[in-house]
Amino acid sequence: MNRFQPIYDIAALCAEKNVKQVVLCPGSRCAPLTLAFARHPEVETRTFSDERSAAFVALGIAQQLKHPVALLCTSGTAAYNFAPAVAEAFFSHTPLVIFTADRPAEWIAQHDGQTIFQPGIFGQHVKHSYQLPQRYDHDDSLWAINRIVNEAINLAMQEPKGPVHINAPFQEPLYPKGESIGFTENVRVIEDIPQQFNLSSAQRDFIQNQWSQFTNILVVAGQHELDLSLQTSMEEFIQQHHVPVVGDILSNLHGMSSTVRYSDAFLGHAPNEIKQRLKPDLLITFGKSVISKNLKVFLRQHKPKAHWHIQPAGISTDTYQTLTHRIDAMPSAFFSFASTLARTENFDSQKQSNYQQLWEVEERRAGRSIQEYFPQKEFGEFELVQEIMYRLPQSCNVHLANSMSVRYANFIGLQAEQKDIQVFSNRGTSGIDGCTSTAVGHALCNKTMNVLITGDVAFFYDRNAFWHNYALPNLRIVLLNNHGGIIFGIIDGPGAQPEAEEFFITRQRLTAKKLTEEFDFDHLKLDHPRKLKNLLNDFLYHDGRTKVLEVETDLMSNKNIFENFKQKIKDSYESQI
Amino acid sequence: MNRFQPIYDIAALCAEKNVKQVVLCPGSRCAPLTLAFARHPEVETRTFSDERSAAFVALGIAQQLKHPVALLCTSGTAAYNFAPAVAEAFFSHTPLVIFTADRPAEWIAQHDGQTIFQPGIFGQHVKHSYQLPQRYDHDDSLWAINRIVNEAINLAMQEPKGPVHINAPFQEPLYPKGESIGFTENVRVIEDIPQQFNLSSAQRDFIQNQWSQFTNILVVAGQHELDLSLQTSMEEFIQQHHVPVVGDILSNLHGMSSTVRYSDAFLGHAPNEIKQRLKPDLLITFGKSVISKNLKVFLRQHKPKAHWHIQPAGISTDTYQTLTHRIDAMPSAFFSFASTLARTENFDSQKQSNYQQLWEVEERRAGRSIQEYFPQKEFGEFELVQEIMYRLPQSCNVHLANSMSVRYANFIGLQAEQKDIQVFSNRGTSGIDGCTSTAVGHALCNKTMNVLITGDVAFFYDRNAFWHNYALPNLRIVLLNNHGGIIFGIIDGPGAQPEAEEFFITRQRLTAKKLTEEFDFDHLKLDHPRKLKNLLNDFLYHDGRTKVLEVETDLMSNKNIFENFKQKIKDSYESQI
Repeated sequence: MNRFQPIYDIAALCAEKNVKQVVLCPGSRCAPLTLAFARHPEVETRTFSDERSAAFVALGIAQQLKHPVALLCTSGTAAYNFAPAVAEAFFSHTPLVIFTADRPAEWIAQHDGQTIFQPGIFGQHVKHSYQLPQRYDHDDSLWAINRIVNEAINLAMQEPKGPVHINAPFQEPLYPKGESIGFTENVRVIEDIPQQFNLSSAQRDFIQNQWSQFTNILVVAGQHELDLSLQTSMEEFIQQHHVPVVGDILSNLHGMSSTVRYSDAFLGHAPNEIKQRLKPDLLITFGKSVISKNLKVFLRQHKPKAHWHIQPAGISTDTYQTLTHRIDAMPSAFFSFASTLARTENFDSQKQSNYQQLWEVEERRAGRSIQEYFPQKEFGEFELVQEIMYRLPQSCNVHLANSMSVRYANFIGLQAEQKDIQVFSNRGTSGIDGCTSTAVGHALCNKTMNVLITGDVAFFYDRNAFWHNYALPNLRIVLLNNHGGIIFGIIDGPGAQPEAEEFFITRQRLTAKKLTEEFDFDHLKLDHPRKLKNLLNDFLYHDGRTKVLEVETDLMSNKNIFENFKQKIKDSYESQI
Repeated sequence: MNRFQPIYDIAALCAEKNVKQVVLCPGSRCAPLTLAFARHPEVETRTFSDERSAAFVALGIAQQLKHPVALLCTSGTAAYNFAPAVAEAFFSHTPLVIFTADRPAEWIAQHDGQTIFQPGIFGQHVKHSYQLPQRYDHDDSLWAINRIVNEAINLAMQEPKGPVHINAPFQEPLYPKGESIGFTENVRVIEDIPQQFNLSSAQRDFIQNQWSQFTNILVVAGQHELDLSLQTSMEEFIQQHHVPVVGDILSNLHGMSSTVRYSDAFLGHAPNEIKQRLKPDLLITFGKSVISKNLKVFLRQHKPKAHWHIQPAGISTDTYQTLTHRIDAMPSAFFSFASTLARTENFDSQKQSNYQQLWEVEERRAGRSIQEYFPQKEFGEFELVQEIMYRLPQSCNVHLANSMSVRYANFIGLQAEQKDIQVFSNRGTSGIDGCTSTAVGHALCNKTMNVLITGDVAFFYDRNAFWHNYALPNLRIVLLNNHGGIIFGIIDGPGAQPEAEEFFITRQRLTAKKLTEEFDFDHLKLDHPRKLKNLLNDFLYHDGRTKVLEVETDLMSNKNIFENFKQKIKDSYESQI
């Protein structure tokens, strides 16, 4: 038997568990696993030299496949470069199986090569951190290696999904000398038969008993993957109970006929008496974070009598400071069941209907303001985002970078007829550090068009997203280049400081020109609004090229456009009064 | 009093403690500290958008100043992007005071903005991690904030120096509204009156008692900063006791008349009978890691009877598996005292003299082989490194990137007349992730020339080192571009695998051309050896330009040159026998 046979068999086990996408980073310590993954016929491997980017690529693949992706690096600071993506995976519930090769435990911190303290290195940002045995000459070790990898993959997939860490110390020699690398047949698989998180009888009883006690029921959806069966159950639920559903662009509910998508716009400016009327008695939430600060502040200031959060498992959050009940179940199970509850045709149901209409009135008002707002005299990035959003291909992935891009896109929203578009954004930690690499991960493992909307700081921060040898014919990048962190000019506090330019906005001079030359991408420069239509046609045309559509705009002008937009929303209330 | 006065006073305290170089990263949560540092008249601040690069820049400044540098980022994954540099600082004993702004503790992981689990985030890679109070309305908080920052800076400077972490949660509002930011006069300073780590009487007695019992005494110096007083005491010591001193290029002992600098070359190929004679009875070490694997293997296989490691404080390493005594003192104190010990003119002292000569013979043999080896018929990167090393300005900083650059440079070595040249390399963790940024940090805070020798993978990995608004007129980069991780082609194991190209060497196509255009650097392309002399003159000429001297060479040809070099060393023994 090869000395490393138990390690080689990790690749076989991963393949058995359908973990067939593996992201590798170059290094020597990791060689036994690298070779195993590279040689396993069912495993697809890709290599990225910048570990920070590699980990976000893996995150993107895992988001796309909704299944764990394995990630491997050598010993030393390589592991720490994974950490930003690991934290994002943890908070965004994305399954990753992270292997960090290590020197043998005896050799850590002995001034001998690349070592840091790797066991447990990701702290609380993984669901669990495992340590593999480093010797394989006792049956217990063989058992443990197989068990740990089985457990880790199962754990990554359990609700809430997330990253798991396996630190793997390897003793030299690391490379086979002539002997071939094979895989044991029938490696032991520990299958996890998952819970479905349907409603328990206690949950059904609770919901049934409580349901009639509330009018003014509001649903707020947090970030959630596109889920057509969920949408179907929600549509039924809405039809039955006339409940307004607030869903921002990351809730992926835009395909529904009656989502409230403009709450960020109107809740920031609606007069208090309107907000009073919008206040829910029962708030029902599911999914992860919402983008809108206005929505969060509204709910914190207009607290419901009860707040049910629907989440199958895991730690609760209490974003609105209102949580009273957790229902540990799948949202679709909840909405399906709730749809079956009788609708009592009485004063209460009329009240709920009116409540829904109140939200719809605000939604229409904001929608009109947004549609009427463009075109602006001065073309800015906000308008470009609108144009892009309106012309997206019928079925594609949209990736929204932090910080302003995701906000712009949320103000514009997607329409019901764009139901096949999936929207992604790294909102677990809302970092700018891997937005491009995450989009690259998606583009690498699906054939559909992937459109990334990003600002210049996020874009250049993560430019190593392109530093590899894989073609990205289905990646399109809209680069809103205002030469700095425009968000710090737009939000109130920093913009008012004399240090705004240097320490908050932090001017940067680059454009995408050299970058696109470097990586042989097409560079479409939008230097006049007249060119927009043609450029967008070129941009979205499928010809096998990676394309960057760049618009350079002035921070102050964008700020004014954004301020005027908010004013227009405000005015929509003035004119009414 | 301003609500944030205790936080603003951190800047005043840092200034009082001479922590006047501060590296900032853009963000909003960190605003109270950003503004305080930016407005303090004695503090020099610089801003970098990529936190990974920023932390390595801070590391470089701290290495250059030999004094703590403060580093600040906003909440979220920003902190994790610091981690690779923090680990390097920990293992390289570089003092850093890392401030990570945080949301208030109550708001962590509540789906509200950028939060991760920041307290203790750097694990064992900081000397200590502190948590600041988040409210300032109790005197205890004011006391604690002042005490913690005092303690942290003191701890960073204590031996062994290193990074400390202060997590600082800030509650909104973060920005002053009109009120000016001032600093309290006479903030309390807790001064640390440092130990000097002279020899204790017990240590002196021990050394004196043991000294005469050994002949074949060998000194091996690990990585150490340039220290002329140490060199003076070592010269006296050598003169008195005829002890050979092995010091690789990172020991910064090249200014001494008799360092053994080529041990990596000859210990790899000397016949066993020579190595037997080179075996020490007493091994004396100081400093951090050594580059040479050959040296480590030699010492592990030829164990001394005793091994004294001189290190003022901190955890020991046992790199050679030989340690018998630790002498907790400064190396200079040890060598000064040992120089005073009587040299008994007897058989033993003659034996020690012979032992020194044995090492000198090997040193001269290897030195001749290296000098005779160039020029090679085919010009390669090894030869370019030699040419550069020979022509360095009299006084400059040399920065050696991992992995092959530092090895090449160590084979070439620096000569005694180059005594004012300081050599730096991130050998605490030997990562490639921040070599350029570290050199940039040095260049930003000194006027001397900074020459970085780097390979293409390290160079492009850390290209955000240039993504800021600070001029680098004194930075010169020698880019050895072989389009991949050549080390994996050179070392035995990976090169022999069919996967070598894709998963180990990991081909990359970039050259520095676009990058130099992007950042307006001079790009000097060495495309023919004939041009070398003129190019080097241009390259080292002071004209306020940042310059990249790039040579593109073939991996296989470099591999052959390197193999032939090793063969030549081997041959130097054959011809003798």
